[in-house]
Amino acid sequence: MPSRVRLVTLSTDIGSAYAAQMKGVLYGFLPAGHVVDLTHDLPRHRVAESAFLVRQMVGAFPPGAVHLVVVDPGVGGDRAPIAIRTREGSYLVGPDNGVLWPTAERLGIAKTVRLAPPRVAGASRVGRTFDGRDLFAPAAARLARGARLDSLGKGWAPRPLRLPTPTVSESGVKGTIVHIDHFGNAITNIPSSAIAGRSGSVSMKAGSSGVRRALLCAAYEELRLGQLGVLPSSFGTLELAAREGSAASRLGVKFGAAVTLRWPGGRSRAVGGK
Amino acid sequence: MPSRVRLVTLSTDIGSAYAAQMKGVLYGFLPAGHVVDLTHDLPRHRVAESAFLVRQMVGAFPPGAVHLVVVDPGVGGDRAPIAIRTREGSYLVGPDNGVLWPTAERLGIAKTVRLAPPRVAGASRVGRTFDGRDLFAPAAARLARGARLDSLGKGWAPRPLRLPTPTVSESGVKGTIVHIDHFGNAITNIPSSAIAGRSGSVSMKAGSSGVRRALLCAAYEELRLGQLGVLPSSFGTLELAAREGSAASRLGVKFGAAVTLRWPGGRSRAVGGK
Amino acid sequence: MPSRVRLVTLSTDIGSAYAAQMKGVLYGFLPAGHVVDLTHDLPRHRVAESAFLVRQMVGAFPPGAVHLVVVDPGVGGDRAPIAIRTREGSYLVGPDNGVLWPTAERLGIAKTVRLAPPRVAGASRVGRTFDGRDLFAPAAARLARGARLDSLGKGWAPRPLRLPTPTVSESGVKGTIVHIDHFGNAITNIPSSAIAGRSGSVSMKAGSSGVRRALLCAAYEELRLGQLGVLPSSFGTLELAAREGSAASRLGVKFGAAVTLRWPGGRSRAVGGK
Repeated sequence: MPSRVRLVTLSTDIGSAYAAQMKGVLYGFLPAGHVVDLTHDLPRHRVAESAFLVRQMVGAFPPGAVHLVVVDPGVGGDRAPIAIRTREGSYLVGPDNGVLWPTAERLGIAKTVRLAPPRVAGASRVGRTFDGRDLFAPAAARLARGARLDSLGKGWAPRPLRLPTPTVSESGVKGTIVHIDHFGNAITNIPSSAIAGRSGSVSMKAGSSGVRRALLCAAYEELRLGQLGVLPSSFGTLELAAREGSAASRLGVKFGAAVTLRWPGGRSRAVGGK
Repeated sequence: MPSRVRLVTLSTDIGSAYAAQMKGVLYGFLPAGHVVDLTHDLPRHRVAESAFLVRQMVGAFPPGAVHLVVVDPGVGGDRAPIAIRTREGSYLVGPDNGVLWPTAERLGIAKTVRLAPPRVAGASRVGRTFDGRDLFAPAAARLARGARLDSLGKGWAPRPLRLPTPTVSESGVKGTIVHIDHFGNAITNIPSSAIAGRSGSVSMKAGSSGVRRALLCAAYEELRLGQLGVLPSSFGTLELAAREGSAASRLGVKFGAAVTLRWPGGRSRAVGGK
Repeated sequence: MPSRVRLVTLSTDIGSAYAAQMKGVLYGFLPAGHVVDLTHDLPRHRVAESAFLVRQMVGAFPPGAVHLVVVDPGVGGDRAPIAIRTREGSYLVGPDNGVLWPTAERLGIAKTVRLAPPRVAGASRVGRTFDGRDLFAPAAARLARGARLDSLGKGWAPRPLRLPTPTVSESGVKGTIVHIDHFGNAITNIPSSAIAGRSGSVSMKAGSSGVRRALLCAAYEELRLGQLGVLPSSFGTLELAAREGSAASRLGVKFGAAVTLRWPGGRSRAVGGK
């Protein structure tokens, strides 16, 4: 065993029973305690929404870990299996379908390789439906034990994934729902700084729901039960929330829905019409 | 790294994706394997029901760990963030809304502090919606590495949370449903000793359902399929169960429902009327 | 602490809050990082379906671990609590209801014992509903720390569980759905080799659904959205899949449903009629 072994984190949409098989492969190479479950409930087959969450989860870790991500609806097809070394010394391993891109962009890409197929005995007999176990887990384990990135494959240019960006005007801001969280809070891509210095209530339109009033606040507790609020989320962007209730259900919004906030006194069409 | 680092356990209602961010913060301080997931599916925003489960889970651990609990509907508001040292040498970290109280009471409170806000760079820019990541996780990590409780904040008197208590009479016992488990068994707060020496069937009334017959037994297997039973649960209290089915669904009961058991031959009104 | 401690893996149908209590007991004996969650969402009370998954998960692990399995509808009844040493040096611990059998058969049984009741102080006062915590976890921890199997109980002949086997004819193959996975793919017990050298579409009948066309393929991406496919699963057997959709829902099939595939040109009644 090498003197220092890296942590391997797992972020997948495959459920715990499939993920358990990845852990089995990893523990063939790694000492006790070196595999960390992040989540196995990423939004199924939804690359962009998962990519947003992965960036947030991985971003909370100290540099140096190997982050294995499996949201891979194109498994067995043309998408490349890749591993990325980031500028701060972590590794990202998974499919090149964009799910790693926002994280890689944030941490900085030092080098990317396309993983060569495994040459393990019997590998040709396994199916092509579970690269997480058969290809990504062995690669992540080797990196965790100190293998050089170059030893896993040849250089590759990863495919970018652009998450939507908000537009700001004098009268308000228009953005997008990028995540519905565990509580039904609707996380937007609008930076929290957009409401700096503002208070009181705003006019809000989300998805196909009508225009509503929502309170600008800083904590759920400032809301009355059932009142809608707009507040700085833990993602650094604004979230739409209903105290101890699901804002997403009340507004009928999902990932990708448009959100418009209009400041009091703002000109009515400048934002709403964009 | 200090010579002995404590385990940090996580019990939350926030789901695995938010909990992953807490793990990222913790692994900035702790060696591999020192973060243990208990559950991230505590009953959402329900402090008393969660407190009952936390006491049971934490009570199964050996002394010495740091137990971090996040069921925190008042995050960002007036409730205090606290850390408790117990008499047997464990730590409890979380909001002072009662969720830690039953555990603290069972283990014995040696000292409590109100956690001072973190002084990390940039902390003022984060929102006030995720103290689990921004305040509790750093505090738990410091305690796990040997920091003194006094170094985290000033002395504080934690807020008690009284779980309901049952009442016993000659003719029977009246209690409360304190948890619906994973299988739909309805766990009461009635000590299992209440049926010591008794057997056969009893009259049972739970919530707004009508009076039913239920078999006093010791194992699910003594019940016929679909039959209702009353038996000693693994919590030390009685549970209402239906073999390989959900007693809670059949009875239509939830957390907080009243439960009355009347012994054969007991006077009819002594219990039912209380 | 012994010089080498084994990993203990947990596979249960009891949910994370009950499993947390098992971890508490285990960490009374084991160093940090030595307890690995596989899943706590095995199909509830369903021994045969769980046994199939356990074999797959445990089979991915390197030899030497202790695998604790709790799917135990007969807890507290007549079924024996057992521990098995396998030929490749792992241990299996759980109820003797068949849930361990397919794994034991695959790894080879070296010796089995019936676990003696625990002699811990106060054990007589706990209920008979949670052997996972009160009996299996202490036994698994002792094995992980190097205890000899003989020290835990007397020799025992475990009860076999035969998973169904497929029948092959010239015109096709008939098997059974043995698992519905996280994505709604229906995993059969038909070896993937059954379609070796074949391509194009086949006639498929699953459960009580009508006869359908399904494409023989190797990866989900070869299917059009919504098209049904038959492909080698990661279990080594064929699965029925719908691209980015649930084949099980579309076909209305559950665990145990019959599946018939008929090759083009095969005689019509040879398989369908069986």
